[in-house]
Amino acid sequence: MKIQIYPILVLFSLAAVSSVSAQKKAAKAAYIYTDAQTLTKNGQWPLNTSDYQRVDSTGRVPLPATVQALAHWSSGINIMFQTDSKSIAVKWKIAKYRTIPTMTAVSSCGLDLYGWNGTYWQHVGIGIPRSEVNTDVIVKAMAGKMTHYRLYLPIGSEPTQVEIGIDPLATIKPADARFVPKKRVVIYGSSITQGTAASRPGMTYTSILSRRLGVETINLGFNGSGKIEIELAEAVARIPADVYVLDCVPNPSPQEIKERTYPFVKKLRTLRPNTPIVMIESITRERTFWDLESQAKVKQQNVEFKTAYKKLLKDGEKQLYYLSTETLNGDDHESSVDGTHLTDLGFMRLAETVAKTLKTIL
Amino acid sequence: MKIQIYPILVLFSLAAVSSVSAQKKAAKAAYIYTDAQTLTKNGQWPLNTSDYQRVDSTGRVPLPATVQALAHWSSGINIMFQTDSKSIAVKWKIAKYRTIPTMTAVSSCGLDLYGWNGTYWQHVGIGIPRSEVNTDVIVKAMAGKMTHYRLYLPIGSEPTQVEIGIDPLATIKPADARFVPKKRVVIYGSSITQGTAASRPGMTYTSILSRRLGVETINLGFNGSGKIEIELAEAVARIPADVYVLDCVPNPSPQEIKERTYPFVKKLRTLRPNTPIVMIESITRERTFWDLESQAKVKQQNVEFKTAYKKLLKDGEKQLYYLSTETLNGDDHESSVDGTHLTDLGFMRLAETVAKTLKTIL
Repeated sequence: MKIQIYPILVLFSLAAVSSVSAQKKAAKAAYIYTDAQTLTKNGQWPLNTSDYQRVDSTGRVPLPATVQALAHWSSGINIMFQTDSKSIAVKWKIAKYRTIPTMTAVSSCGLDLYGWNGTYWQHVGIGIPRSEVNTDVIVKAMAGKMTHYRLYLPIGSEPTQVEIGIDPLATIKPADARFVPKKRVVIYGSSITQGTAASRPGMTYTSILSRRLGVETINLGFNGSGKIEIELAEAVARIPADVYVLDCVPNPSPQEIKERTYPFVKKLRTLRPNTPIVMIESITRERTFWDLESQAKVKQQNVEFKTAYKKLLKDGEKQLYYLSTETLNGDDHESSVDGTHLTDLGFMRLAETVAKTLKTIL
Repeated sequence: MKIQIYPILVLFSLAAVSSVSAQKKAAKAAYIYTDAQTLTKNGQWPLNTSDYQRVDSTGRVPLPATVQALAHWSSGINIMFQTDSKSIAVKWKIAKYRTIPTMTAVSSCGLDLYGWNGTYWQHVGIGIPRSEVNTDVIVKAMAGKMTHYRLYLPIGSEPTQVEIGIDPLATIKPADARFVPKKRVVIYGSSITQGTAASRPGMTYTSILSRRLGVETINLGFNGSGKIEIELAEAVARIPADVYVLDCVPNPSPQEIKERTYPFVKKLRTLRPNTPIVMIESITRERTFWDLESQAKVKQQNVEFKTAYKKLLKDGEKQLYYLSTETLNGDDHESSVDGTHLTDLGFMRLAETVAKTLKTIL
């Protein structure tokens, strides 16, 4: 009996596999892809159609080497478009598939789609990365009404190609002007600013701010390297903005903060005399409640930053705002993955606090 | 000049490296390790000193194969202890280093330490995994007062050995009885219950509940496999509890929910006649606002679950509680990594909702 049935089962299984595989191929082939560079890019300055890097090659030249390397990553850059497709697929390539144990691969190398629900930007789905070359279907079975979307690019890697796939009979085009933010906020800082432990690219606090306030945010957060060097004041000032946010206390030593903050803000103020500047202390570093060495260091970092702020006020500097550590990421000590890097829970809290201040300015 | 200086620099560098390396070795050697099985284990039933599995080998026998495999994982199990060490190190081995793109490696394979701050369990730090065999220093430079801690084990892998390292002159011992939870809540469900997209092992909603309510929670969440099979009613009932929570709507089809929920609860009620049972609908699956097929399916899943609940009420079943989907994970659609699996942001919201109900029961 077994001998008779076995080949039939095998044949049936092979046929089934072949059929599923054929369906998958047909489904894949069915999408029509559009190069994201031909749509509406947001979160990059100056805009260009040749790459997805936060700081262009000219702007990178004077920067410290580590910052130059991180400036290739696409944190905060998002593609705006409109389509009536019922499904949205993506193909993307990244220079290097990079993961770290405190971060999801979706966050470092994946894509993250939001759609305009008529009232606000609502999360739709993610593109899951597996290697340097990726294809995924982010969403299917939608109503097929013309809708605006924005696709966030990876936080911790450099995309070299991004294509958006739609159903064959659907249309896709750049975003209408009314959806493109008119105001711009440039945020300079550390890996926390960059968004390291966000679960997906759209959940950095700079991107939450962008959606909540309807502004463009330029993410100049540099993993371990937001050290207030004077060259960065020029890089920040190079980008025309309605507000500059300096969230750069976590990386430099207290001594560096003491030496660098005052001249940094003075330089920025000289280059952009009338633009409001928000200075943010370090978020509450959860580990410092236990690690007394870290506690002393972070306390001193904030003290030096505040001292510089007071000196600037004394100089008569206007349009200067200051946010203290205790307001930033809650008081239950659950906001981070590792005692330092905020998760979505921490970023939501930080975004809400910073949004309050930005609303009074913008 | 260069020729003269170069060798000196090399020698100096080598000496520095050697010295740092020696210091690191000395630091590593300096910890005295204790097998975690000799301390106070929590979140496992029945307790044993031979493994860190959620369901023991006897209990696993009647279960579906996929559930048996997942029952080896340690989600929710935590080690309670007290020490006056200024540093806490960990050595741990896991059966297989396992990561998925929507999850941090810390969550699937790492460790997560909380300490009692005098009022509540506060996050301390994590043990970062790199492979099957790991060593890490979770925290250093503490005050060195005798303090209670609890170390959460991985959500998505099977630890085979866990050791806790302290300073040579410090002491470590099991937790005092007053710190060991007296009440127990057993929670049965899907990967969401298991905690898939928590950023670290302590941030599953079952573990947040455990800390917030001061109860032991037993995590019976099975990735893709919480399908309300009748054998699971017996597995759940086998564990003596003050409350049973059934959070098992996401995995089974609407038809399976229709067929299985009523007999499952009846069986559980027969085996545990007086224990309160909380039935939870599916969390709001964010993707269903866009994907209309998923929307119809999840809606029907909840409808079938509620129909079974009403039938049970009609039977006169007492001590039955019900939580509806709209109360569970907020209304901003930002609670998940992928439209389904909750992040720390979603788990905190879910824990707060479930805690309210549990407080009225416990």
